Amino acid sequence: MATHHVICGGSAATMTGAGYGLLEDAAIVIAGDRIAWVGPAADLPTEHAAHPRRDVSGRLITPSLIDCHTHIVHGGNRAREFEMRLNGASYEEIARAGGGIVSTVAATRAASEDALLRSALPRIDALIAQGVGTVEIKSGYGLDQQTELKMLRVARALGKARQIRVVTSFLGAHAVPAGIEADAYIDDICIPTLRAAHAEGLVDAVDGFCEGIAFDTAQIARVFDVAKELGLPVKLHAEQLSHLGGTALAARYGTLSADHVEYATEADAAALAKAGTVAVLLPGAFYTIHETQAPPVQAFRNHGVPMAVATDWNPGSSPLGSLLLAMNMACTLFRLTPAEALAGTTRNAARALGLTDCGMIAPGMRADLAIWDVTDPAELSYGIGITPLHSRIFGGVS
Amino acid sequence: MATHHVICGGSAATMTGAGYGLLEDAAIVIAGDRIAWVGPAADLPTEHAAHPRRDVSGRLITPSLIDCHTHIVHGGNRAREFEMRLNGASYEEIARAGGGIVSTVAATRAASEDALLRSALPRIDALIAQGVGTVEIKSGYGLDQQTELKMLRVARALGKARQIRVVTSFLGAHAVPAGIEADAYIDDICIPTLRAAHAEGLVDAVDGFCEGIAFDTAQIARVFDVAKELGLPVKLHAEQLSHLGGTALAARYGTLSADHVEYATEADAAALAKAGTVAVLLPGAFYTIHETQAPPVQAFRNHGVPMAVATDWNPGSSPLGSLLLAMNMACTLFRLTPAEALAGTTRNAARALGLTDCGMIAPGMRADLAIWDVTDPAELSYGIGITPLHSRIFGGVS
Ligand SMILES: [Zn+2]
Ligand SMILES: [Zn+2]
Repeated sequence: MATHHVICGGSAATMTGAGYGLLEDAAIVIAGDRIAWVGPAADLPTEHAAHPRRDVSGRLITPSLIDCHTHIVHGGNRAREFEMRLNGASYEEIARAGGGIVSTVAATRAASEDALLRSALPRIDALIAQGVGTVEIKSGYGLDQQTELKMLRVARALGKARQIRVVTSFLGAHAVPAGIEADAYIDDICIPTLRAAHAEGLVDAVDGFCEGIAFDTAQIARVFDVAKELGLPVKLHAEQLSHLGGTALAARYGTLSADHVEYATEADAAALAKAGTVAVLLPGAFYTIHETQAPPVQAFRNHGVPMAVATDWNPGSSPLGSLLLAMNMACTLFRLTPAEALAGTTRNAARALGLTDCGMIAPGMRADLAIWDVTDPAELSYGIGITPLHSRIFGGVS
Repeated sequence: MATHHVICGGSAATMTGAGYGLLEDAAIVIAGDRIAWVGPAADLPTEHAAHPRRDVSGRLITPSLIDCHTHIVHGGNRAREFEMRLNGASYEEIARAGGGIVSTVAATRAASEDALLRSALPRIDALIAQGVGTVEIKSGYGLDQQTELKMLRVARALGKARQIRVVTSFLGAHAVPAGIEADAYIDDICIPTLRAAHAEGLVDAVDGFCEGIAFDTAQIARVFDVAKELGLPVKLHAEQLSHLGGTALAARYGTLSADHVEYATEADAAALAKAGTVAVLLPGAFYTIHETQAPPVQAFRNHGVPMAVATDWNPGSSPLGSLLLAMNMACTLFRLTPAEALAGTTRNAARALGLTDCGMIAPGMRADLAIWDVTDPAELSYGIGITPLHSRIFGGVS
């Protein structure tokens, strides 16, 4: 029988039902790596009364946070390019200096698996220090078979090196590499690489970037068809910079999520709702690229589209390493409520990854918890660049 | 004779001259709490060759950061109000629920000196964890003599409790409390409180808030006249929400700084330059209140106005606890270059506080240093919500 212990005394934002699902003076019974019981401490069943207790009075307990969209495995950084741009360099000059995504692709191809792992560890550690228990990591800076597989292996290794669950997405359809047409890249490189990555057990979901600067809906559909054939769930970067029909495609394929979605329409919102697709909001990219079109949050609400919030941590359009800051940005820039922002990094983020065992404090869920030095859950979104984490529990272990 | 030691091997952004004043493979000789020599390691004078060395190869050394505008001593927080607003409450409804600055004044008045100190310590610790060596802290949530003095005593106590230098500003002229006219408040409460605070040695500078919702230039001038009489430097929150002439007043009084300054004009920039006043940019407040008018950065450049960058950490308009994030926001929202942002939290921040012994790595300066896990100083502004601090040296002590 699994060992039991009880976390008690604090308030718990269980994230069950609507809103925070707040329990004052809560008790959470943990059995092994699972939650066995949750409720008011006063109602603790007598069978659990004798278990060891940990008192967290005056603190707030939430599910561990889930960062459901990141690109944290990559070589190099783009600080030089950031500086050039602010010193007035044009995109052409930056491209001539080797900037843009090609610089990240070159650095990622050049890095050894070990070097990639070492450079990603501080990023994982920064997320863990913020109460993150599950992180999604995408490939997509290889654009060749060898490097895409290397990135995914590093993502898997990160989940073994630290107390965090890693979920991988194959994002071969991220950009068109130099020297090849988009169609040929999809058919001759991306899809064979997907099959190889899947055969190696490296792929939890398949992602794509549907945009004028990347791939059109027909090209993405060919990748998705292979994903379906392999039994893999799909997701999509859609409608970030323009309206190309990515969201409708996502809905047609029943993707787990449609991500960015600044340019999604009311009709797109209706289609996502019908498909059960989560809209993943990425305010870090919106902020960094000075986007002015906010995603249609009210339409998502009206149609009942679940909204998640993630960092999109990547070296170009969103060098954002704080999921709490993404929550503040979602509130400040997109007018989410703090309860929506927290649902966006717990319950709905789990759903965006197809996970049914985390993101809520409820019996049967994984005992992945974050304990915060705050009393009101709104404080998590209210503070800017502040990390009031007290401690975390991962798989039942403190 | 003071003990000597040498920091060597990393690059140093000395922040002397224009730009970063970058030295590759630098050596910094520390004697007691001061910098005795700085230059390329290859040029280290033989008299320092035998001192103990600390190798920081592969890292970047900067002066300790300086947060030159904060309100981190206060009771309560305003997360509830943040949440109400995002749930659609009007300003009237929030005011009826006890929100706004009056809620912070009430909580600050109600808190004991010890409670205020305890609530501010995590804020100080968060700044220290970001490489901050000097922080300015304002009063202004008391608006009565007892509480203003209490706030300033807590600010002084913070500087004793932690390895950080605290510089205080008396901000009695922050808001008009209920039940009194602005003029009467200035003459009967604010100015007598300033005299009492000065007599107790609690005031390093005198600040005011010149705005439609606070005080006009004539009222601020009466406070500044008393400051001058007491031999205290002055500074001013000016032109944040509208153009009221605060910047011109600041220039006329030769203030150390004019802060916020979104609505300053080209003529204001010329006046500030002539007066030698620093423009302190506070992008956290700009971001939080959805301001759309950016400060006239190009005019400041054209006229040679030194620009500083600070958090404005306060519970209402800028609950921003990260000076590095303020630097990123200054670049992203105001188009500062990363070199301007770093000068804004080192050399120019020192100047905004009237300090001549910090903010640069140069002989005679305090040995307040930050050592970072980055190689390029632009990385400090490029990352969002990331804190790549390796370690810090305060007064020569690691
Ligand atoms: Zn992405
Ligand atoms: Zn202020």
